[in-house]
Amino acid sequence: MKCIVLPEKFDYDGSQISSLWAYNSFGVQEDSIVVFRGSCDVKIEHMIDLEDRRENESIWSEDMVSFIIEHFDSTDLKLVYARQRLFTAIVREYLADVGVQTTREGDDLFLKGKKLTVSIASTSAVSQKAHFGINVSHDVYGNLEEAGLGDEENVSRLMQEIGARYVREFEDIEKDLRKSRPLGVV
Amino acid sequence: MKCIVLPEKFDYDGSQISSLWAYNSFGVQEDSIVVFRGSCDVKIEHMIDLEDRRENESIWSEDMVSFIIEHFDSTDLKLVYARQRLFTAIVREYLADVGVQTTREGDDLFLKGKKLTVSIASTSAVSQKAHFGINVSHDVYGNLEEAGLGDEENVSRLMQEIGARYVREFEDIEKDLRKSRPLGVV
Amino acid sequence: MKCIVLPEKFDYDGSQISSLWAYNSFGVQEDSIVVFRGSCDVKIEHMIDLEDRRENESIWSEDMVSFIIEHFDSTDLKLVYARQRLFTAIVREYLADVGVQTTREGDDLFLKGKKLTVSIASTSAVSQKAHFGINVSHDVYGNLEEAGLGDEENVSRLMQEIGARYVREFEDIEKDLRKSRPLGVV
Amino acid sequence: MKCIVLPEKFDYDGSQISSLWAYNSFGVQEDSIVVFRGSCDVKIEHMIDLEDRRENESIWSEDMVSFIIEHFDSTDLKLVYARQRLFTAIVREYLADVGVQTTREGDDLFLKGKKLTVSIASTSAVSQKAHFGINVSHDVYGNLEEAGLGDEENVSRLMQEIGARYVREFEDIEKDLRKSRPLGVV
Amino acid sequence: MKCIVLPEKFDYDGSQISSLWAYNSFGVQEDSIVVFRGSCDVKIEHMIDLEDRRENESIWSEDMVSFIIEHFDSTDLKLVYARQRLFTAIVREYLADVGVQTTREGDDLFLKGKKLTVSIASTSAVSQKAHFGINVSHDVYGNLEEAGLGDEENVSRLMQEIGARYVREFEDIEKDLRKSRPLGVV
Amino acid sequence: MKCIVLPEKFDYDGSQISSLWAYNSFGVQEDSIVVFRGSCDVKIEHMIDLEDRRENESIWSEDMVSFIIEHFDSTDLKLVYARQRLFTAIVREYLADVGVQTTREGDDLFLKGKKLTVSIASTSAVSQKAHFGINVSHDVYGNLEEAGLGDEENVSRLMQEIGARYVREFEDIEKDLRKSRPLGVV
Repeated sequence: MKCIVLPEKFDYDGSQISSLWAYNSFGVQEDSIVVFRGSCDVKIEHMIDLEDRRENESIWSEDMVSFIIEHFDSTDLKLVYARQRLFTAIVREYLADVGVQTTREGDDLFLKGKKLTVSIASTSAVSQKAHFGINVSHDVYGNLEEAGLGDEENVSRLMQEIGARYVREFEDIEKDLRKSRPLGVV
Repeated sequence: MKCIVLPEKFDYDGSQISSLWAYNSFGVQEDSIVVFRGSCDVKIEHMIDLEDRRENESIWSEDMVSFIIEHFDSTDLKLVYARQRLFTAIVREYLADVGVQTTREGDDLFLKGKKLTVSIASTSAVSQKAHFGINVSHDVYGNLEEAGLGDEENVSRLMQEIGARYVREFEDIEKDLRKSRPLGVV
Repeated sequence: MKCIVLPEKFDYDGSQISSLWAYNSFGVQEDSIVVFRGSCDVKIEHMIDLEDRRENESIWSEDMVSFIIEHFDSTDLKLVYARQRLFTAIVREYLADVGVQTTREGDDLFLKGKKLTVSIASTSAVSQKAHFGINVSHDVYGNLEEAGLGDEENVSRLMQEIGARYVREFEDIEKDLRKSRPLGVV
Repeated sequence: MKCIVLPEKFDYDGSQISSLWAYNSFGVQEDSIVVFRGSCDVKIEHMIDLEDRRENESIWSEDMVSFIIEHFDSTDLKLVYARQRLFTAIVREYLADVGVQTTREGDDLFLKGKKLTVSIASTSAVSQKAHFGINVSHDVYGNLEEAGLGDEENVSRLMQEIGARYVREFEDIEKDLRKSRPLGVV
Repeated sequence: MKCIVLPEKFDYDGSQISSLWAYNSFGVQEDSIVVFRGSCDVKIEHMIDLEDRRENESIWSEDMVSFIIEHFDSTDLKLVYARQRLFTAIVREYLADVGVQTTREGDDLFLKGKKLTVSIASTSAVSQKAHFGINVSHDVYGNLEEAGLGDEENVSRLMQEIGARYVREFEDIEKDLRKSRPLGVV
Repeated sequence: MKCIVLPEKFDYDGSQISSLWAYNSFGVQEDSIVVFRGSCDVKIEHMIDLEDRRENESIWSEDMVSFIIEHFDSTDLKLVYARQRLFTAIVREYLADVGVQTTREGDDLFLKGKKLTVSIASTSAVSQKAHFGINVSHDVYGNLEEAGLGDEENVSRLMQEIGARYVREFEDIEKDLRKSRPLGVV
């Protein structure tokens, strides 16, 4: 599994959640997590979460760090959602490690009661994907600036480190499941 | 999904990881998490982790809280491992919420550098299961007493609360995946 | 699993077979069976059965009871077709219980040699669905009026009862599969 | 899919539910339904239903018709249970067609309030199987004799016909799923 | 599984890789391999391989033999790719049997260092498909004429024989997997 | 995926087909192909192919090269059989490349009409495995000595090269399926 951190600003408009975006953009032929920073403005046709559509929610942030995860090993919805939750927990752990306490509710993190993150996961016939976004700055929602992590260096470290941690977690799981005997039965 | 917390002491010898143990013992016909407290002494024939077998590891604790998770919705190894990792993160979150900082490495939690927990996950032809154990007291390894959570009330609350959180997480995921559109494709 | 019986007339144009229609329309985040009554006129772009398309079949009824089943636990075509056949058998059983004998051929029921019902099943990347329609009145095909079940009360009871029976069957299966040991092997 | 009706008496002791029994006994290398008649006395080690084991239930009949279904196309528990329920409905339909009214509750048929049948389904790592037994005669339970179908000719016809109907149903499903377009999405 | 060899010229424009094309065109309701000969000119919207799209590759041949394989028994990408590679090996074996040595690299065959074939595989929500094309004549790429197999009779035999071999291989596999016991475990 | 060629003689008694043998013996936590040379004498309890058991076949060779493939990415029988056939084709290709013509029938290779190889594949709840053996010398069956490849150097090269080719094929497939768009639909 490969982690790609984009060096330049890159805006998220929701089309990046499409299957094969990572291959099409960067030629990567592994499972991947692509990390970038830029504005976020999800167009209605790319909204995966029907709740957002129904409620005409805007998913908007002037400055957001985005993580785009893609796995081709399964198209099981249950699996991508378990992975998405696990990723959310990894982000929370990283933030705690750098001194920022947040609370997790499902796939959302809250900073002092304000929603810090957005996330969605789904599948196509060929892959499973998740998007996870963290506001760097925001007028209404929680954001990394308020958490004291808004400067270039901190944001950059967060992008690198969280991407790397997810890859490590994935590879660790792949190794663990290759040394476990099947269950006995009562 | 059902959470069952056993009111009496119950010792873990590894046979509880077998498929259908919860049905056989408690008649439960849902996915379940069973929580109990007692000694832990895993017999060699119940060791699922071949690494432990190969290294002739003893999995022993005089006083341990055990969580036994069983799902029948899939027998995918990848899924049960993702769920096990997520469960581990949930335990860490609970501990942090009650003021105890630990570090997570895969499915292990460490308290001041000492291993606090044991865990394994696997599948049979009919279900997937995970065991997660937290030492209440231990001569060598990390334990809840050292963390200041060893008294009856704290242990009891931890058992109830972590069990309930996992059920909530599972049910939240099941709801989320029922409102997500399939991915578009590049 | 939830059964929703719509209190008002609702026309079926085939778009209701789309994945997530139940969530989008009623906010339901469980597997579901939605039952309603109204005219049926399936537009060509919503025809799932290619045989109908090829033969330029019209799927039309001035008054039909429709059942829309959606499951998110699997996207296996074989499973949704087995469930569709089972549902057809449940409808037949209900009709027999209220004194109306029909014959079943696959997913079709016949009343005195005339086709009484229409049905289709398929999957998307996120869910599996089936539609099952029973004519209340029809110039050509079999219908509930001819069966002596065309009055408001009988139609209403049929909608409630068949919906409830399918939910009961599904939940009964989910319980049964949680108490069965894996097979031995010769 | 192949239907094999054994010409001689054959007793069911539960070992026939094991995977690959049909291949081992008859060399059949297709999905199959094997039908035979004889006594039924299931040994404890072959009891698949843990409820029977827990309640020390005896599964015994001096004269029973048995259907043994095996599919290798999937090891999904949900699928084999849906198929088992569908098979039960097929048996009920056959009995109704020859003038015997029964009621179905899940995988059980009742004749005048008395349980007429036994059934179980499960999977191994290589196949899925179901057993369905109908008492020909019995001191306590419902049976074909009481239904007026106990003579040689009727039993023999029932064995042939139900086996053939299940094969037809299975093949009909396999054809139907090969002409259905994927679902659209809301 | 059915093999259909089209008697008339038929041009490949890429739309034939769509799911259900075989049913829609020929009414076949089995897994199938359809074989035909004609020009090949794949439109951009039917290009499945994103590498070709990205590189603006033209997939063009004035005279090509095409094999279109469709299976409905699984929508697993790994399986259709294993089958595609196996099919490629079958083609190579056939060519060797008629005296033409080629080399295989993944899903490509080379004749005297020139690419002789094109191939792609993928899945939808309802089926898995592969296309495999062999140039009969070509200005740039390897082709059957250069191999001395370009005359009507040789091309016709190749179409019949390779189609039949794949069906045989598939059916042989289906039989073999119905006589294998599950693995033991260390 | 890892290829391990054992430097010392190692006898095959059939127990090596068990899941997790590679981990237990060599600590490998990847999908793997283990290659070794030694006598072959499969004990009845390790016979996976029931045909061999039924016919009381002996699987015996005084000197055989064995390939043991294990994948943990799926427990689908259809997939491991497709991979086994592909592996067989790879062996044939290698032999052709070093000047030895064989014919393939399913998972068997024949040298001048004599069976040169043995093979079996199956799954457990946690992995899928295949064994493929090539006689180096044999009184009755085809063997590498007769093919002029029986000397130490040729056998050693064959072991290295075929193992490496399978790893390459597997990795090539994994890359290819990460650049293919889902199929359109008619």
